[in-house]
Amino acid sequence: MSQCFMTPTRLNQQLAFLKEIDKVKQIFRQTRLFDNTRYENDAEHAWHLGLMALVLAEHAATPVDVAKVVTMVLLHDLVEIDAGDTFLYDPKRGVGPSEAEAKAARRIFGLLPEEQAHPLLALWEEFEARQSPEAKFAASLDRLAPLLQNHATAGHAWKAHGVHAGMVRSKNAHIAEGSPALWELAQNIIDDSVKQGFLAPDPTAVT
Amino acid sequence: MSQCFMTPTRLNQQLAFLKEIDKVKQIFRQTRLFDNTRYENDAEHAWHLGLMALVLAEHAATPVDVAKVVTMVLLHDLVEIDAGDTFLYDPKRGVGPSEAEAKAARRIFGLLPEEQAHPLLALWEEFEARQSPEAKFAASLDRLAPLLQNHATAGHAWKAHGVHAGMVRSKNAHIAEGSPALWELAQNIIDDSVKQGFLAPDPTAVT
Repeated sequence: MSQCFMTPTRLNQQLAFLKEIDKVKQIFRQTRLFDNTRYENDAEHAWHLGLMALVLAEHAATPVDVAKVVTMVLLHDLVEIDAGDTFLYDPKRGVGPSEAEAKAARRIFGLLPEEQAHPLLALWEEFEARQSPEAKFAASLDRLAPLLQNHATAGHAWKAHGVHAGMVRSKNAHIAEGSPALWELAQNIIDDSVKQGFLAPDPTAVT
Repeated sequence: MSQCFMTPTRLNQQLAFLKEIDKVKQIFRQTRLFDNTRYENDAEHAWHLGLMALVLAEHAATPVDVAKVVTMVLLHDLVEIDAGDTFLYDPKRGVGPSEAEAKAARRIFGLLPEEQAHPLLALWEEFEARQSPEAKFAASLDRLAPLLQNHATAGHAWKAHGVHAGMVRSKNAHIAEGSPALWELAQNIIDDSVKQGFLAPDPTAVT
């Protein structure tokens, strides 16, 4: 594309980035749409998180810069163009971004003019580090969305991967750091999912 | 969903809205992904416009509130849940939003708590009115994206609907209001598309 239009270099770099990220629409997740007709892709997921950020911001643990949260969630999965999607409950998934993800971020944001690449790369790193109020809240939304989707689809991804309630509680407990209110909601979803047979109970739970 | 979780009414309303808008992922457009493998849906399109807004904001005709543009583009197509997608070159398409779209906006934003519904409805109306700098720039991005996609897919949607260069110039000329630089790019894309046989030349053009 960049050769065709005789556009200035700076705009060419921006267009190359915008074309590259189209690939996010082809990366499919383990979660399904609310109507359970098909799997969701990363672009749709990021769009939905953007609207969740706008609508649910009042539930953040501390006041957040909503525009920053929206930007974070819109770009949080771009690294999966190179590194692929790793299921939350995959035992091979480590804590924090993998080397492949960090390398992908440098390559993909690096398509942009340098002074645009730096802040976006820094924002992705901030999201991954999960220390700032915005990053904690963005992570809460990123965890809440698949809980809502799994509940709506009778636990599709949980059943497909043998996930039980203890694993869901453990992997999602950090929702509380970004939003105690949404963690309360998440616990209600988990309890109801067990009750309705969408999610296997924790095998270690004493009943 | 809202009956299950014993959540407060306000959060229930927000969840009902967030579940409803999942339907946007099932509304397919006439444009295809850059790799031409399939049609694009409204959620992916809105996500891509969000990143275009972040990356291309410097090309706006006048300085814009980027966060406002991002919010506008993320929600601009929600009305299509009820009103469906209308192809830009459809002769039945009127100027401004249809009555069906206005009704859809009231219903869909109306799922939210009232004081959240109002500003988002107003933002959608502002987008449609295309008077503010943010609305003009958001409209420029909304027009530029399918030009890039049609160019990348050898004019797929143009050929499928018998669209020629004169129609493309006429329907996209308002890109200039939001961004003279992006309108210059758009004209280069149109010219190159004609040259490469992706787009039929204007039949009234004197050559």
